[in-house]
Amino acid sequence: MIKFTEKAPYAPVEYLYDVEDILHKSKSKFQEIMVIKNPYYGKMLILDDVVQITERDEFFYHEMLTHVAMHAHPNPRKVIVIGGGDGGVVREVLKHETVEKVYFIEIDEEVINVSRKFFPTVSSGVDDPRVEIKVMDGADFVAKAKAEDIDAVIIDSTDIIGFARSLFTTEFFAAVKNCLTKEGMFVTHTESLHFHKDMVIEIQEILKKVFPVVDLFSAPIATYPGNWWAFAIASKGISPRDLRHEYKIRTKYYSDEIHRQAFMPKGMYEKLMNKALEW
Amino acid sequence: MIKFTEKAPYAPVEYLYDVEDILHKSKSKFQEIMVIKNPYYGKMLILDDVVQITERDEFFYHEMLTHVAMHAHPNPRKVIVIGGGDGGVVREVLKHETVEKVYFIEIDEEVINVSRKFFPTVSSGVDDPRVEIKVMDGADFVAKAKAEDIDAVIIDSTDIIGFARSLFTTEFFAAVKNCLTKEGMFVTHTESLHFHKDMVIEIQEILKKVFPVVDLFSAPIATYPGNWWAFAIASKGISPRDLRHEYKIRTKYYSDEIHRQAFMPKGMYEKLMNKALEW
Repeated sequence: MIKFTEKAPYAPVEYLYDVEDILHKSKSKFQEIMVIKNPYYGKMLILDDVVQITERDEFFYHEMLTHVAMHAHPNPRKVIVIGGGDGGVVREVLKHETVEKVYFIEIDEEVINVSRKFFPTVSSGVDDPRVEIKVMDGADFVAKAKAEDIDAVIIDSTDIIGFARSLFTTEFFAAVKNCLTKEGMFVTHTESLHFHKDMVIEIQEILKKVFPVVDLFSAPIATYPGNWWAFAIASKGISPRDLRHEYKIRTKYYSDEIHRQAFMPKGMYEKLMNKALEW
Repeated sequence: MIKFTEKAPYAPVEYLYDVEDILHKSKSKFQEIMVIKNPYYGKMLILDDVVQITERDEFFYHEMLTHVAMHAHPNPRKVIVIGGGDGGVVREVLKHETVEKVYFIEIDEEVINVSRKFFPTVSSGVDDPRVEIKVMDGADFVAKAKAEDIDAVIIDSTDIIGFARSLFTTEFFAAVKNCLTKEGMFVTHTESLHFHKDMVIEIQEILKKVFPVVDLFSAPIATYPGNWWAFAIASKGISPRDLRHEYKIRTKYYSDEIHRQAFMPKGMYEKLMNKALEW
C-alpha cells in the first residue's frame, strides 16, 4: 500500500495514511495542495503535507468552529470567515437563517477551486448569493472593515505558523474587536491541548489584552495530531457559554448539549492560565 | 531517526514515533513486550506493537479509568483491578485512603516485572501491602469471588480483541455484578468514539443486559489512535455521574469538574444507542 506521512508542525507523532489514489497535486503561490483518497476517510485535502479536512470527519471541526459562536450571538446577520478555503465554515454559517451576508476571505484562491472540484459537499455554500468571496489577506480586510458592523468573525486558518501567524497579533485582534457589534463574537482554533498547550495559553493571553471576555472550548478531532483541539472565543461582554437563540439547525456533532459541555471547566481553565496544568 | 510504526487494531491511521533507544524487548507467553525511548514521551511500553502507556501522558488514561468509579462510590474499600500490569490503575486506586484491599489480577507477570524495572513511577503501588497480586485470567478470578464483597471492579485491558475478549461477555459481567456490593461500580475502557463506535455501543448493550445502570464517559488520550476514548461504567442502581465523597486526592487531569463533564450528554447518548450518530 502507498502511504502518506503527514508532517504536522510541532507534533511529537507522525500520522501515516493509506493512499488509494492521488487525485490532485499542484503548487499555488502560497502552498502545495494535494487531494488523496484514503479507504476510510475518503478524499483528504492536504496543504504543505498537513491534513486539513477529510470527507468523513470534516464536520467535527467545521461545526464546532462555527456554531458555538453563532449560537452565543442572539441574531447573527453579518459574518466574516477568514481562511477555510474549503468552504466548510461558510456552509455551516449559512445554516443560520438569520444570516444575510458572509464575507469569505481566503488568501489562496487555488484552495477554493480545488475544493469546488473535489469536495462539493464541503464547498456547497461558497457560491451562495449571500457570500462575497475576497481573495486577500484576512488581516487587511478586517483592518478596513466598518466599525461595529459584523456579528461574528471566524478564523479557519492552517496551523498557527508561517503566513497564518499575522492573524494572531494584538493589532489584528483589536481590528476584529473594532468591526464587531456589541454582541459580536470572535472565534478561532488554537491547536492541541495535548501538544501545543503553550500556544493555547499565549493566544488566550493576547486576546485578553483586547477583549473583556475570552474563553476556551475544545472538541475531539481525529485527523489533527494532538486531537484534543482547542478553540478560543472572545466577545465585548456577553458569555459564549450560553446559547442566545434556539438550536434548530441540522448538525452531526454540535448540539446545544455539546455547546455547554465543550467549554473548559472554570477551575481547570484557571489552572491552565496559571501554567499549573502538569503536562 | 529510527521510527516505530504502531499497529493498532482497526485504526485507519498508523502512528509513527521517533525511537531514541530500544530499552527492552522480550516475548512472554502472551505477547511481545517492548520498551522504547521517545524524545517527547519518554519511555513507552509497547505490547504486540501497540502503545500501552508513555511516561509523559499515562495519567490521563489511568486517572480517568480509576477516579470516576472511585468517586461515584461513597466509600470504596475493596477493589479488583484486572489487567493494567504496568500498575498505573493500582497506583491511582491507592490514592483513596478508604482503600483496604486491592486484588490486582494480571494474566502476564512479565508485564508487571518490566514495568517495575522501567516505569517505577507507574508501578509504584504494586508492592504496597494492601495489594494482592494474582497472576491469572481476570474472568476466572471474578467467577470465584465472594458475593457482594467488592466496591469496584476496574478493567484495564489491552485492545478488545484476542485474549482480552473474554472480559467483554454477558457471563463475565454477570459474575462482576455478583461480586459487587450494593453501591459497587464497574468500569472499563471501550476503545475510541471516532474509530470503534460500534464496539462502544456493543459493550454498552451487553452491560445493559446485566446492570440496571450503564453509562459512558470519555477522555482525550493522545497516544491511543482515535484519541476520543470511551469508558463504560455500570452499577446496581446509583448513578456514576455524581461524586459521593469529596475530591481531595492529587491528580493532573481528573477533577470533580472533569468527573461531571466527562459523561456523554443525555441526548447524544440516546442518539448513540439508537445508532443515529452519523459517523
